[in-house]
Amino acid sequence: MIRNVAIMGATGAVGQELLTILEQRNFPLQNLKLLASERSVGREYKFKGETLKVELTCPEAFKGVDLVLSSAGASVSKEFAPIAVDAGAVVVDNTSFFRMDPNVPLVVPEVNPEDIKLHKGIIANPNCTTIMMVVALKPLNDISKIKRIHVATYQSASGAGATGMAELKQQYQEIVEGKPVTVKKFAHQLAYNLIPHIDVFTDNDYTKEEMKMYNETRKIMHSDVSCSATCVRVSALRCHSEALWIETEKPISVEEARAAIKAGEGLQLFDDPANNGYPMPLDLMGKDDVYVGRIRKDLANENGLNFWLVGDQIRKGAALNAVQIAERL
Amino acid sequence: MIRNVAIMGATGAVGQELLTILEQRNFPLQNLKLLASERSVGREYKFKGETLKVELTCPEAFKGVDLVLSSAGASVSKEFAPIAVDAGAVVVDNTSFFRMDPNVPLVVPEVNPEDIKLHKGIIANPNCTTIMMVVALKPLNDISKIKRIHVATYQSASGAGATGMAELKQQYQEIVEGKPVTVKKFAHQLAYNLIPHIDVFTDNDYTKEEMKMYNETRKIMHSDVSCSATCVRVSALRCHSEALWIETEKPISVEEARAAIKAGEGLQLFDDPANNGYPMPLDLMGKDDVYVGRIRKDLANENGLNFWLVGDQIRKGAALNAVQIAERL
Repeated sequence: MIRNVAIMGATGAVGQELLTILEQRNFPLQNLKLLASERSVGREYKFKGETLKVELTCPEAFKGVDLVLSSAGASVSKEFAPIAVDAGAVVVDNTSFFRMDPNVPLVVPEVNPEDIKLHKGIIANPNCTTIMMVVALKPLNDISKIKRIHVATYQSASGAGATGMAELKQQYQEIVEGKPVTVKKFAHQLAYNLIPHIDVFTDNDYTKEEMKMYNETRKIMHSDVSCSATCVRVSALRCHSEALWIETEKPISVEEARAAIKAGEGLQLFDDPANNGYPMPLDLMGKDDVYVGRIRKDLANENGLNFWLVGDQIRKGAALNAVQIAERL
Repeated sequence: MIRNVAIMGATGAVGQELLTILEQRNFPLQNLKLLASERSVGREYKFKGETLKVELTCPEAFKGVDLVLSSAGASVSKEFAPIAVDAGAVVVDNTSFFRMDPNVPLVVPEVNPEDIKLHKGIIANPNCTTIMMVVALKPLNDISKIKRIHVATYQSASGAGATGMAELKQQYQEIVEGKPVTVKKFAHQLAYNLIPHIDVFTDNDYTKEEMKMYNETRKIMHSDVSCSATCVRVSALRCHSEALWIETEKPISVEEARAAIKAGEGLQLFDDPANNGYPMPLDLMGKDDVYVGRIRKDLANENGLNFWLVGDQIRKGAALNAVQIAERL
């Protein structure tokens, strides 16, 4: 029975969305605690008509807490998730720190809900681009096993948090006002630009973000599927988009794929080329589902399908998925 | 011997770039004529210190003209290219109208210069995304034949001409000023958005833009290569970017690919992950070459390579390629 819930990293973009979603979904809790670093202690936020004050993330803060929703960064999770577990809480962790730990289930409720019960105190929430992708892959993989994935992402500023969105807005304001452009959060100016580089580079010259799509997808889907990703930061505010090609063991027709996506959990089919209908990030901010469109036969692979998806990176890509895991606990 | 040159569509984004490039490259001509529709007649532009007045595109305008560089739209080319040819000119046409005509060579000078001499008066300039892609594919295809291409594009506002760029700038200005956003040139708001739809849809639910990448690539490369593309308009001003996966008959190593791109004509290798070095649209406006980076082994295909390219859509993607064809005539 979950009574006492704590949000760790409560002042960030995902933390704030967690607050919103817990209220919107009327998550069954008695007490909610907002935790953050020293700098944010004392800030106040509304929750169901009450005012909550941010408290310091420290070992004592987890006493009596049943559930921790954590989105404070990998180093904070590394330090405090085990402390919270020792104090008796279950931790649903939004950071990358525990995701590939063999003792920690990595869960997208639409895909592998059965893994939740294997937890030993910590359940990891996958990376945003992976979550959206596997939600769309699930019903197609149920028709015929997916063997290969090629995916190019179009990731919004929100992937770098609230400060990422603020910096992008500030950059356009500065450009319009003829001022020098401020570049702090991103490695380069993002306004009017694309940055084909998210997270750090690894030994094989893929970025960590790209390798997350490879490794996390295999773990979530319990599959040996191989995935080659190119992850690109674009000048959108808070929805991520992905252009995907999949190869399945047997061919799947466009009609089958459309029907499967339409019936799929957490998915919306929006594939109406005759009426210029397809998902776009600007339209889908704040939506819970992953929207799929532009479904076509892969012209370069008889067993291939090609499609486009868009999802709200902060909701399904992070906060909503975490709450959905907690709801199933 | 080319003496008298006419630019058809002289007031558009590509027309203006043609003017710049003819001057920058000191193209050997005696007289330059600027042609446009009635609305632009009388406008004045500088060329090599002289002032040129825009004249009306009409049959009489081509008298004595040796070379027409045309970028006025498919319907204008359809009507006036044959008239110009009858008047004795060679037409290098930037529009889509003649590209797939079996009697018209489709040329990227770095790839199939030998096709120029097959012309019967008209030489077609390929679509921007195809030009950039085949320039990068050429040296790799010389190592081992490319069998399949998967490509996701990130195409800037300039692909919709000068009015496309102006609309994107206007949209950000309106957003910053808190005004309603003007949407005219694009089907949807492009600022803070992505539009996975360029040109019209065809019967197989690919767009014409995507099918250009399939069909034009085969024609230029004299190859049965198959190409599946997803073309997306992004909020950049004038460089197009592409995320590519290619499958070759025999595997090509990353080192071989880097060496081939580095030595390739019209190409610049910019692939320095250790120092966050990769091509970005904001850095490459006004550049002639296609820049390639992020070269990796395809994790989902033993015979595959994965890379990223960026090129100035108005220069190599249109005007420069046309002038390079003319220079070889």
